Amino acid sequence: MAGQLSFDNPIFSKFAFYSTLVVGKTMMMSHLTTINRIRKEAYANEEDTKTFGKTPGLLVKLADSTVERIRRCHLNDLENVFPFVLVGLFYVSSGPDSTIATWHFKIFAGARILHTLAYLFSLPQPCRFLCHNVCWFVTASMAARVLARALDIEFYI
Amino acid sequence: MAGQLSFDNPIFSKFAFYSTLVVGKTMMMSHLTTINRIRKEAYANEEDTKTFGKTPGLLVKLADSTVERIRRCHLNDLENVFPFVLVGLFYVSSGPDSTIATWHFKIFAGARILHTLAYLFSLPQPCRFLCHNVCWFVTASMAARVLARALDIEFYI
Amino acid sequence: MAGQLSFDNPIFSKFAFYSTLVVGKTMMMSHLTTINRIRKEAYANEEDTKTFGKTPGLLVKLADSTVERIRRCHLNDLENVFPFVLVGLFYVSSGPDSTIATWHFKIFAGARILHTLAYLFSLPQPCRFLCHNVCWFVTASMAARVLARALDIEFYI
Repeated sequence: MAGQLSFDNPIFSKFAFYSTLVVGKTMMMSHLTTINRIRKEAYANEEDTKTFGKTPGLLVKLADSTVERIRRCHLNDLENVFPFVLVGLFYVSSGPDSTIATWHFKIFAGARILHTLAYLFSLPQPCRFLCHNVCWFVTASMAARVLARALDIEFYI
Repeated sequence: MAGQLSFDNPIFSKFAFYSTLVVGKTMMMSHLTTINRIRKEAYANEEDTKTFGKTPGLLVKLADSTVERIRRCHLNDLENVFPFVLVGLFYVSSGPDSTIATWHFKIFAGARILHTLAYLFSLPQPCRFLCHNVCWFVTASMAARVLARALDIEFYI
Repeated sequence: MAGQLSFDNPIFSKFAFYSTLVVGKTMMMSHLTTINRIRKEAYANEEDTKTFGKTPGLLVKLADSTVERIRRCHLNDLENVFPFVLVGLFYVSSGPDSTIATWHFKIFAGARILHTLAYLFSLPQPCRFLCHNVCWFVTASMAARVLARALDIEFYI
C-alpha cells in the first residue's frame, strides 16, 4: 500500500533515516552547550556554579557569546527540524513519488548540516541564510503536497 | 479500520490538513523575524551585520522590541503547536468520533491563528490569554482521551 | 504485525501513554509560567501589564529569576521531549522487543519528571545533569536502532 507508515515502505524507511539523522544532530547541540558552559564557566543556574564552577564565588553568566551562538543554532533547529519531521510524516502518508520524496529528505538533511556548520563557524552570510531557506522550502513543498492531498486537489507528479 | 494513520481515514486526512496549516503558520514566523531584523537592522550575529547591514560599523542588537515580540510569538507556537500535532497523532489512532475530532482540530487552528494576530498587533488582554488557553485545553482534551485509551478506560463518546 | 502504529499494538499503546505523559508535563510549564508572571508581576508584554498588573504604571520585566528558571526548564523540555516522541514513533515502527521498549519509555518518563523537580527546586548538581543525560541516552538508543533498521543492519536483540 502506498503511503504506509511502516519500514516495509521504502519511502518511510528513508524518511525515518534522514529524520533521525537531523533530530540526532539537534540533540548534539545539548552536549555542545554543556561543554562550552563548562569551558567558559558560563552557567545559567546558581546550583551549577556551585558544583561545576572552578573559580571561587563564581556568579551565573547568561550572556556568553559562544554559548549564546550555540543556543541560537539549537533553537533554529527546533524551529525547522520538528516541522520537517511532522509535516514529513503526513507527506509520506500521502504516497509521494519515491525519487522526489528521497530528494526532499536528502536536500533537507544536507542543508541543515551545512546550516549548523555556517552558524558555529560564523561563515560569511548569505551562507547560513541560504541553507535556512533551502530547508524551509523543502518543508513548504512537502506541506503543499499534504494540503493538496487532504483537499483532494491534483498535484505535481 | 478506525484510527488508521492513512489518508484513507477521513479523520487522519482532516488532522493532516489542520496540523500542516498550524505548522505552516509557525514556519511563517521565521520569515517575519528575518524581514524585521532587516527592516530594523537588529541582527543577532556579527556576520549578519557585515553582509546585510547598511549602516557602516553596525553592531549586533539583541533586544529590538518588534523582533523580540515576533520571537516570543514563535516560541509560543513551538510550545503549543508541536504538542497538538504529537498528541493529535495518538488521538487519531485512538479512533475518536469524527465530528468531535474535527471540532478539536478546527477550534485549535482557529484559536492559534487568532493568538498570533493578538500577539503581533498587541491586542488588549485577555484576548491572547484566552486564545492560548483554548488551544491548551483542546490539546489537553485529546491527551485525556489518549491516556484513557492506553489504560483501557471507558471515555466520552 | 510487529511495529504497527495502532493501539492494537501493545508497544504503541505504551508509547502513546508515556509520550502523552511527558508532553502533558511539558504543557504544564505554560501555566506555571503564567502563575509566576502574575505572582511576581513579571510580564513580557505591555498589554499584559495593563490588564493583569496591579501596581499602577507597571513596566515590562523580562528578567525575573523565578520566571526565567521555569522558562529554561520549559525550553529544555522542548529540546528533549519532542525528539523522544519523534524518534520514538520510528522506534515503535521498527518492531522492537516489548520489554526493552517499555523500559526505554519508563526510564525516559521517570528521568524527565525528576529533571523538572531538580530544575524547579534548584536541587544540587549533578542531579539535574544526570536526569538530563539519562533522557538523552534513552532517545539516542532508540535513534541507533532506527538508523540500524533503516540501513538493514543487525542490531541488539
